[in-house]
Amino acid sequence: MSKARFEAFSDSVFAFAITLLILGVALPAFKSPPADRELARALLHLWPDVLAYVLSFGVIGIMWQNHHALFRLVERIDRRTTFLNLLLLGVTVFIPFATSTLGAYPRMTSATFLYGLTLTCSGIAFNLLLDHLVRTGAFHANVAQATIRQTTIAYRLGLTTYAVAMLVSLIEPAVSFALYLLVVAYFLTPRGVDADLTGKAGSF
Amino acid sequence: MSKARFEAFSDSVFAFAITLLILGVALPAFKSPPADRELARALLHLWPDVLAYVLSFGVIGIMWQNHHALFRLVERIDRRTTFLNLLLLGVTVFIPFATSTLGAYPRMTSATFLYGLTLTCSGIAFNLLLDHLVRTGAFHANVAQATIRQTTIAYRLGLTTYAVAMLVSLIEPAVSFALYLLVVAYFLTPRGVDADLTGKAGSF
Amino acid sequence: MSKARFEAFSDSVFAFAITLLILGVALPAFKSPPADRELARALLHLWPDVLAYVLSFGVIGIMWQNHHALFRLVERIDRRTTFLNLLLLGVTVFIPFATSTLGAYPRMTSATFLYGLTLTCSGIAFNLLLDHLVRTGAFHANVAQATIRQTTIAYRLGLTTYAVAMLVSLIEPAVSFALYLLVVAYFLTPRGVDADLTGKAGSF
Amino acid sequence: MSKARFEAFSDSVFAFAITLLILGVALPAFKSPPADRELARALLHLWPDVLAYVLSFGVIGIMWQNHHALFRLVERIDRRTTFLNLLLLGVTVFIPFATSTLGAYPRMTSATFLYGLTLTCSGIAFNLLLDHLVRTGAFHANVAQATIRQTTIAYRLGLTTYAVAMLVSLIEPAVSFALYLLVVAYFLTPRGVDADLTGKAGSF
Repeated sequence: MSKARFEAFSDSVFAFAITLLILGVALPAFKSPPADRELARALLHLWPDVLAYVLSFGVIGIMWQNHHALFRLVERIDRRTTFLNLLLLGVTVFIPFATSTLGAYPRMTSATFLYGLTLTCSGIAFNLLLDHLVRTGAFHANVAQATIRQTTIAYRLGLTTYAVAMLVSLIEPAVSFALYLLVVAYFLTPRGVDADLTGKAGSF
Repeated sequence: MSKARFEAFSDSVFAFAITLLILGVALPAFKSPPADRELARALLHLWPDVLAYVLSFGVIGIMWQNHHALFRLVERIDRRTTFLNLLLLGVTVFIPFATSTLGAYPRMTSATFLYGLTLTCSGIAFNLLLDHLVRTGAFHANVAQATIRQTTIAYRLGLTTYAVAMLVSLIEPAVSFALYLLVVAYFLTPRGVDADLTGKAGSF
Repeated sequence: MSKARFEAFSDSVFAFAITLLILGVALPAFKSPPADRELARALLHLWPDVLAYVLSFGVIGIMWQNHHALFRLVERIDRRTTFLNLLLLGVTVFIPFATSTLGAYPRMTSATFLYGLTLTCSGIAFNLLLDHLVRTGAFHANVAQATIRQTTIAYRLGLTTYAVAMLVSLIEPAVSFALYLLVVAYFLTPRGVDADLTGKAGSF
Repeated sequence: MSKARFEAFSDSVFAFAITLLILGVALPAFKSPPADRELARALLHLWPDVLAYVLSFGVIGIMWQNHHALFRLVERIDRRTTFLNLLLLGVTVFIPFATSTLGAYPRMTSATFLYGLTLTCSGIAFNLLLDHLVRTGAFHANVAQATIRQTTIAYRLGLTTYAVAMLVSLIEPAVSFALYLLVVAYFLTPRGVDADLTGKAGSF
């Protein structure tokens, strides 16, 4: 599998998935042509949808960055890597559906749980991918062991955070929504000196 | 036709088609805002849609891999190749529609037959493409005859499997759905040593 | 404007527009869960939508090929080229809407006329683009004058054909639908020896 | 962050967002199969949707050109650039929603204001991106200070224009719609000699 075509395909899927998110933001069907006030009110009522849109735009953006940072380190793409990558993309493409459900029913347990479940699955897919790459020694020769160890820790942490937020949703949906936002805000904020991206492969 | 632009266009269509699959997973319109239990039930009732989504994600993923594996061997893209490739892409883009129909009516003959028909058409398109490439000697000079022969056998087998599953759907829809899942699981599972992808061009 | 990024952007838009066509093929909403016969009948009734899908897949496929063939000859992309290309892409992205209208109302004058109008506009955009490239001498130095002349003739012919089909639609909608299909079939069929694509830049 | 993959991802998102605009042009659901006259009337009534489509196609086209012109000057992509670029893309992907709202309710304050707000946000994102690039000296060594100064002025002007149009919408919606069209027409029209695109990075 040529790495260029592998990355191009993955990039396209990330780009489409992130763009499809906007379909989750939609005005309700009006029975009769609305007055201006009514339209304004309907638009304002879309705030959970817009918040869910912003959240998932951040999530997929981070995933894309991590994918990029991870595969910069990789030299060889084998068949199982392609398979696990397909799994990861399959979860990614599912995010727009989980997002529109969250936007439509932001205070319902089933919506916040589904969202957390989807993020947790993306965390699992990332960890399976990383573990396979580590096990088969697919990295470039000059990648330091410390970088790989650091990345692994960060991946485990990311998965744990998402899993916790998912479990919180079973108790208090609104809190888990806020938690998702916090996690994304934390990982998106650039910190300190602009560190070498390689060493940050794990922050998702 | 430059091979790079030919592949880039095909990759975009594959990536877009695989992403559009998610539009087949959609909540029904509720007459009144649902209670949490009702939403949870509606989400759980989406399992055939999600299964169809997973299935087709696998199918298009395999097709993309095969397209990639096939065109790695190819040196020259002529006008008829472009035409047959367009045919293949046209069938691929049809898959999201067949998938959403299958997800909505998983136990109905017409839905499972339509799905099998679409896969069979993709098999035909792949075989026409391969035959044209073989006939015009479009492969790189260093591609072994054995590789081409092996690929041809695998392509014929793939087509036959899909055609049989399609015919089974006329008798027992649920069985053919299970059959599609089995075929995809079989082709997606990485086996044994990570064989040279070139020699696996035919596994779809 | 770097030619690589210009072509990549155009290719992506062509690829998305061709994929969006499938959204025009959709089952009607059933009032109650349909029986298998009913679903089969509904699927069979989609034939004009599928025909329109096939037609437009051919149309956009040909446009993509022509775009490719044309810009192989081009060396310099200036601002007006980018603008005229944007015009062409804008018409291309409109095709899925015209197609779904045609598929839904294949025997209505307004649907077939809209479709013909869209194709005619694409012809105009291609001709404006070509004329600008000719006027500013944007072609590679080694492109023969004969090639450019031949391309120009083919572009004028293509535009004329679409315009005629559009006018026919005002008199006999069904005939113009058949005409569109014939034109596309004609241009898609590979003919004789596999001619140098450069010399065929004009066939759309 | 490799510049190639950064640009490819951005291009895909721009291309996809520009294509999604067509989903804003849709026929109303007819209660019974319409007569030809009725269909023709419904199509003609879509003119504000089509105008909004043309407008936004121009807007995103200009944004893509500017993105391209800006990043031609850039040498280094750091983490904050990626973050601000994600912000810009997030606003871009929102444009199809703002456009379909504008097309559906072209004379309503809330629709024209939302549209202006979206464009203003895109202006802010572009300015934040530029300021960060200037502050961190991310440009190629051979980019003239004059070019950067000129670009900055143009970016500030673009933002101001959009903000003014947004405010006008609060007083006279129809006027602001016309204003958006004028701004886009102005920036899209190629002027004078075909100036070096580098020096025009700021025209949006």
